Amino acid sequence: MSDQVKMTELQYDSDRPKAGNPLKIMDLSIRDGHQSLFATRGRTEDMIPVAEMMDEVGFWAIETWGGATFDTMHRFLNEDPWERLRTLKRYIKKTPFSMLLRAQNLVGYRNYADDLAYAFVDRAAENGMDVFRTFDALNDYRNFETVVKQIKKSGKHFQGCICYTLTEPRLGGDVYNLDYYVNKAKELESMGADTICVKDMAGLMAPYDAYPLVKALKEAVSIPIHLHSHFTSGMSPMTHLKAIEAGVDIIDTCMTPYAYRTSHAAVEPLVMALLGTNRDTGFDIKKLADINEVLEKKVMPKYKHLLDDSKVSIIDINVLLHQTPGGMLSNLVNQLREMDALDKIDEVYKELPRVRKDLGQIPLVTPTSQIVGVQTVNNVLHDTPDERYKMITGQVKDLCYGLYGKTAVPINEEVQKKALKGYPRGEEPITCRPAEVLEPELEKAKAEIGDLAVDMDDLILYAQFPVTGRKFLEWKYGKTEPPESVKPITLEEVAKRDALLKKAKEGKLVEKKGDTPEKTEAVRTFNVFVDQEYFSVEVDPVGGPVVSMPRQNAAPQPAQPTQPASAPANPAPAATSQSANPAPASTSRTGTLLLAPMPGMIVSYAKNIGDKVSKGETVVVLEAMKMENALGAPCDGVIKENSFKSGDTVAKGAVLCVIE
Amino acid sequence: MSDQVKMTELQYDSDRPKAGNPLKIMDLSIRDGHQSLFATRGRTEDMIPVAEMMDEVGFWAIETWGGATFDTMHRFLNEDPWERLRTLKRYIKKTPFSMLLRAQNLVGYRNYADDLAYAFVDRAAENGMDVFRTFDALNDYRNFETVVKQIKKSGKHFQGCICYTLTEPRLGGDVYNLDYYVNKAKELESMGADTICVKDMAGLMAPYDAYPLVKALKEAVSIPIHLHSHFTSGMSPMTHLKAIEAGVDIIDTCMTPYAYRTSHAAVEPLVMALLGTNRDTGFDIKKLADINEVLEKKVMPKYKHLLDDSKVSIIDINVLLHQTPGGMLSNLVNQLREMDALDKIDEVYKELPRVRKDLGQIPLVTPTSQIVGVQTVNNVLHDTPDERYKMITGQVKDLCYGLYGKTAVPINEEVQKKALKGYPRGEEPITCRPAEVLEPELEKAKAEIGDLAVDMDDLILYAQFPVTGRKFLEWKYGKTEPPESVKPITLEEVAKRDALLKKAKEGKLVEKKGDTPEKTEAVRTFNVFVDQEYFSVEVDPVGGPVVSMPRQNAAPQPAQPTQPASAPANPAPAATSQSANPAPASTSRTGTLLLAPMPGMIVSYAKNIGDKVSKGETVVVLEAMKMENALGAPCDGVIKENSFKSGDTVAKGAVLCVIE
Repeated sequence: MSDQVKMTELQYDSDRPKAGNPLKIMDLSIRDGHQSLFATRGRTEDMIPVAEMMDEVGFWAIETWGGATFDTMHRFLNEDPWERLRTLKRYIKKTPFSMLLRAQNLVGYRNYADDLAYAFVDRAAENGMDVFRTFDALNDYRNFETVVKQIKKSGKHFQGCICYTLTEPRLGGDVYNLDYYVNKAKELESMGADTICVKDMAGLMAPYDAYPLVKALKEAVSIPIHLHSHFTSGMSPMTHLKAIEAGVDIIDTCMTPYAYRTSHAAVEPLVMALLGTNRDTGFDIKKLADINEVLEKKVMPKYKHLLDDSKVSIIDINVLLHQTPGGMLSNLVNQLREMDALDKIDEVYKELPRVRKDLGQIPLVTPTSQIVGVQTVNNVLHDTPDERYKMITGQVKDLCYGLYGKTAVPINEEVQKKALKGYPRGEEPITCRPAEVLEPELEKAKAEIGDLAVDMDDLILYAQFPVTGRKFLEWKYGKTEPPESVKPITLEEVAKRDALLKKAKEGKLVEKKGDTPEKTEAVRTFNVFVDQEYFSVEVDPVGGPVVSMPRQNAAPQPAQPTQPASAPANPAPAATSQSANPAPASTSRTGTLLLAPMPGMIVSYAKNIGDKVSKGETVVVLEAMKMENALGAPCDGVIKENSFKSGDTVAKGAVLCVIE
Repeated sequence: MSDQVKMTELQYDSDRPKAGNPLKIMDLSIRDGHQSLFATRGRTEDMIPVAEMMDEVGFWAIETWGGATFDTMHRFLNEDPWERLRTLKRYIKKTPFSMLLRAQNLVGYRNYADDLAYAFVDRAAENGMDVFRTFDALNDYRNFETVVKQIKKSGKHFQGCICYTLTEPRLGGDVYNLDYYVNKAKELESMGADTICVKDMAGLMAPYDAYPLVKALKEAVSIPIHLHSHFTSGMSPMTHLKAIEAGVDIIDTCMTPYAYRTSHAAVEPLVMALLGTNRDTGFDIKKLADINEVLEKKVMPKYKHLLDDSKVSIIDINVLLHQTPGGMLSNLVNQLREMDALDKIDEVYKELPRVRKDLGQIPLVTPTSQIVGVQTVNNVLHDTPDERYKMITGQVKDLCYGLYGKTAVPINEEVQKKALKGYPRGEEPITCRPAEVLEPELEKAKAEIGDLAVDMDDLILYAQFPVTGRKFLEWKYGKTEPPESVKPITLEEVAKRDALLKKAKEGKLVEKKGDTPEKTEAVRTFNVFVDQEYFSVEVDPVGGPVVSMPRQNAAPQPAQPTQPASAPANPAPAATSQSANPAPASTSRTGTLLLAPMPGMIVSYAKNIGDKVSKGETVVVLEAMKMENALGAPCDGVIKENSFKSGDTVAKGAVLCVIE
């Protein structure tokens, strides 16, 4: 029937005879699953109810850590990422743990110095990590060198990734062709990789590309081949099947509630599809069903509201049209929307492959997808017919300098030259391993954070996330109170919220008013009729029952009796979402205002009050969409006001700084 | 790479070279798509925006009609099903139309007489139908005879279905094995089928079963093979691929927004997967993307709220465990919930295969899935250790009599004998074609409906749906006003609803107040200014400014001035949902009450007021879940009250009838 998968006999129980070459499965539910579907918001307490059951399935490994989890946990969940590892290890005792490691980027967004990289891998191994799935956005394996040394030293499993990317609709072309992947695989094998993962983060791999690719890799190297292909485009179930027929050893899937959409195909249909064949997984589908039931009943109600419900479609066929990750496309749309430039989306789609080509046809994955995406939007918004690349981001400059590594093809020389003009590290790009130009950073971090970092785990967290890491350590050690928004919700609260939503759907709700003043003795009850609706209203004349106050002109707080007593300028943050600081009222301001061009988080102010600045000089660094944006002064002058502090979340249009 | 699909060359444009054996695609979006995802609530006005675009894609056919559409349209949408056919035909001029025809069941739920069957197919063909996809729930092709005669006479395409079903986890066993399907295919070919469809309504077909099955069918017959496999279990994308490799000619898919969940896999990933191979569809994926954009922007917002969001999972792996359609499983759960017996679900899962076996291992599809399901629940709830099949439904009796046709294996004799005891048509089952024992019914229907049926199309509608059909014809010809619930909603209304929901999610809504009191003379009008908004407010001091009215004790309608005048017993129906009539207040009732055991619609009362009844004798027929339930008198006596009329929707526990 096909040259690899053969039917043997059919038996449904889990004690059916073992297949000749059983397919191995890695489960991604509690890392990539919730990262893809629920903005990485999964809490450890919601992994525990199924942890022991999952340990019984027979997975090759369970992905439990890495990727965005480290960032999200300390930033949004007030959870210590290291603690999750130790906690889960108490429940999952037989199945190895796997993590997604961004090579020299560790679990952050830039190349870190070697001392930090060694320390991170050492501590991850000590805390319980078994398989280090390592990738580099440029497939530049010089960026693997440091972490691999430590993975080996710690006696752990080194899985080397090849990021799968295309320049054509299907495998082929001048850059990312079969030879490219075969050569990369050989390179990984010679580096000592225990397994090789083809990482198809955008779901671009078509089934009849997977077949020759896996065949070729199996012939080229002797270590097992592992396929990671997101469902995003809808092709992955077919791609899995052809990869299995070509002899792939390990496949990534999720438990059903964490599956599909931008996540991965579910494990259960694959188990059933292979049942009785020579690639039978041997899994007991009843056990999987039991896990799903717990997840749907006890866990999903807490996360459902995080699912993207803006569309009914669960696949993104734009991925097929543009060979670009779905998340990157939605980031582009959001970015344009925030700049009121959504009408430029088609220009962005056209510009994107040009920018990517200029930047050396780099794969599109964190952080390169953001680098290419933001620069593309900059070009569309700011370039003129006479001048391209008018606004080059700091990250593109770093890329041109060689700080991310070697690109698949050379960077456009003209763009590179322009980007490096006045670049602080030098105008001549480097060709060495990027981390070689980086100074050690652990000591410096220790000096900055001081005793707030109690141990090496704290210090490593701070070193990668100085702003949010410090905040977290302050919560952890009781220096400041964590905000409501980072606290977990209970199933009871979920039930209340859902009941309210149900009523809203039935049209039974009306809008709430703002803060409530206390009632005085003068309060009286009235029945009030507005159109067809009736309200029982308690009316309390502000200032007492006798005095009548004429309306004052131009008063910022009109003395109208119905006005609530408290100022509405700082509404209480909504319980379930991060609240952004609005622009403070600007009536009394003079000088030139620097406004936030997009919502984000203040990383730092480059200038203090009283400092002189020249137009264009960086005054504040704003983090938005995982990218740091250096915002320049709009004019020459003196800093009169820095309105926020490091770590503050700001809305678009907030006054960040006043210059006079 | 595989023995059927070969790579040729890769070109992305739609003018890429034509494949050797291009896969043909039938689109199901506007029939099975919205039937599966949106309870068949799709309106013709929401199909028109993409109709011309879909005509350009190059589909083999577009499924536009049949299945549940006929029922739902006239019942819930106040749309004439015949009119949809004519309307869509004005926009879709090139692509053939396909419909799902339930053979002798037409588009209803029982076998109709031959005169009605001839008339229905004749009128469908006249109104524009091209391909008649015909299935019988028992795969008893004697039930095809009449409709096929007329399909051929009308010069249309006869597609014969084989319902795909299993008794084991995978293809095989004593009943539904390869031979069974091959024999069925040969039977269809000899009946003159133009194509054969394997109809996998539950998504049970595994990829490595599809491959040998399609191979065998291709060898056994010379007409094209068409695969219809629901996504429900998550296997269908893989199953499609292996069927294609085995040489299947036509595959069913949906446009992305109508795809996945209990519907079908999307067309776009399949187009991309086959791009450049000898099975390339030749479709332009950009055209498909354009259609999706219109659907997501203009159509989906109106239907999104109908999606089942009770779970995060988009596949149903219970289907894999029980070889049972997902819809059937959720019906069972609902049925148990309504009877407060959800704790019996595991017993139901155990009993189901026993009942199915007793009833001749029939396939599970409309209506047999309901027949088996309801009987299973009856057995679990009512059987005793001494007696099985204590409550046998009318449909099971009909099945045992042979009214649905011949079962795959003989029915359990004991059950059959019990079921036919006192059966009105006779205690001896028939072995002839079922419709042979049916009297012609068109004349009778005409006599009943009279001039309200203006033409044959009206009459055919009424003949299949006497209760809801009459209601619809009354709306159609202005005899009665259609209720709010059947009216379409606009995108503006959707936007309002969504804005309200968004506020609810942000916690900005509170509950509305209850009934509106009457205004007193003391009411005064104020202009109230709140922020930028102005309200004209009528304020009425409770208790009144001068007059004080003492509250009266124990009066059923307190004479308080704020009490509404109208009795609250019959609240206005909610705009967006069917409203069920609650049980009328029963304070003054004497006698024995017959309560509705489940929500449903009154089909008819079998007894009039004043009639004598014996305990157990049918007094009212209640339709619930597409099944007619004959409800027997709870005691001997005389009918004192029939509380509703034919066509009324009733809630569970409503008093249907009073017997004294």
